[in-house]
Amino acid sequence: MLTVALPKGALLKDSVARFAAAGLDFSAITAADNRQLMLPSACGRARALLVRNGDVPVYVAYGQAQLGVVGYDVLKEQQRTVAQLLDLGFGGCRMAVAVKESSPYRRASDLPAHCRVASKFTSSAQEFFNQLDLPVELIHLTGSVELGPITGISEAIVDLVATGRTLRDNGLIAIEDLFHSTARLIGNPLALRLDTGELNELVQAMEGQGVTP
Amino acid sequence: MLTVALPKGALLKDSVARFAAAGLDFSAITAADNRQLMLPSACGRARALLVRNGDVPVYVAYGQAQLGVVGYDVLKEQQRTVAQLLDLGFGGCRMAVAVKESSPYRRASDLPAHCRVASKFTSSAQEFFNQLDLPVELIHLTGSVELGPITGISEAIVDLVATGRTLRDNGLIAIEDLFHSTARLIGNPLALRLDTGELNELVQAMEGQGVTP
Repeated sequence: MLTVALPKGALLKDSVARFAAAGLDFSAITAADNRQLMLPSACGRARALLVRNGDVPVYVAYGQAQLGVVGYDVLKEQQRTVAQLLDLGFGGCRMAVAVKESSPYRRASDLPAHCRVASKFTSSAQEFFNQLDLPVELIHLTGSVELGPITGISEAIVDLVATGRTLRDNGLIAIEDLFHSTARLIGNPLALRLDTGELNELVQAMEGQGVTP
Repeated sequence: MLTVALPKGALLKDSVARFAAAGLDFSAITAADNRQLMLPSACGRARALLVRNGDVPVYVAYGQAQLGVVGYDVLKEQQRTVAQLLDLGFGGCRMAVAVKESSPYRRASDLPAHCRVASKFTSSAQEFFNQLDLPVELIHLTGSVELGPITGISEAIVDLVATGRTLRDNGLIAIEDLFHSTARLIGNPLALRLDTGELNELVQAMEGQGVTP
């Protein structure tokens, strides 16, 4: 049976809407009282796994889900063997370097060498600072990264910025973007190669509702 | 100023109660409408950082917090340079190997060599299976590990078990314990060495209310 890995949280509602428009109704998963992590589609032809953002590429890479929806930020951080099929357009945000507004830094290259940078995305951050040729000490945090410069554990942070409200509320400003992120449809490479048409049809149906203006 | 890192979630309420009994009132942090991540104690002598479980040892190891409360499960997984000061007794749970109830496995050593094991605690799990001399492929998941055997991504899981309800709800049973976990008071080694008495007094006050029967 076709299995789709859907991410808990901010991307879920739009993900369900996009699959619904392509003929697979997983809307039961967004019901307020839903506690199930594995649900069949309304038609019974497919099922959805409700997992954390960071676990979507794992289930798709291992083939337990043939398709999945996940933010580009997570994809880039994990570098798993999955096929990127579509840019779904929603969930837009940017990965940015941020510092205290009161600091003298206005570009990433202003940061002092060997300073500390806190992030949930230490692999993407490391790549960025390597390209800048700026050696930094990365500190991996799992949440509330904005506390980094406030507590003094780090000079800067690398984090996702959507509206910028969290940064403002904490006296921080974004000084440089690493990349822009949106939700992506990903697929298991082997499942795509062995596909008898079903997967391809679904991907095409989802592409049809593209985000082009 | 004395800074204490407190963990969001299940251990928070008891942590606040234990500091309160030792004279530091952080109860504002548990108010339903609290959105602040850094709060002063009622007396103004100290402050609390509200961070995720996994980040408590980071803030304590780097010295941004002199003390912290965190589960032994996280401490063991991360192996950070922090001093374990007290076993606070609450938050009891066990780290266990669990499999599908319908599987033939009843001990960890029954698992087939090179089978897959999903866990949030891959380092503790790896150590356990190394000691058993059983080579397994560990799959790191960040949440809902009970989906592992259900979806077939793994034969077994290694996860925290408190009441056992999540396992039962998902048709899984625990077959072997790795260790028992409770909340621990940890400290920054350098801060403890440079302590002029304040930290030691607080630790002793918290020890005084020990969990001995």
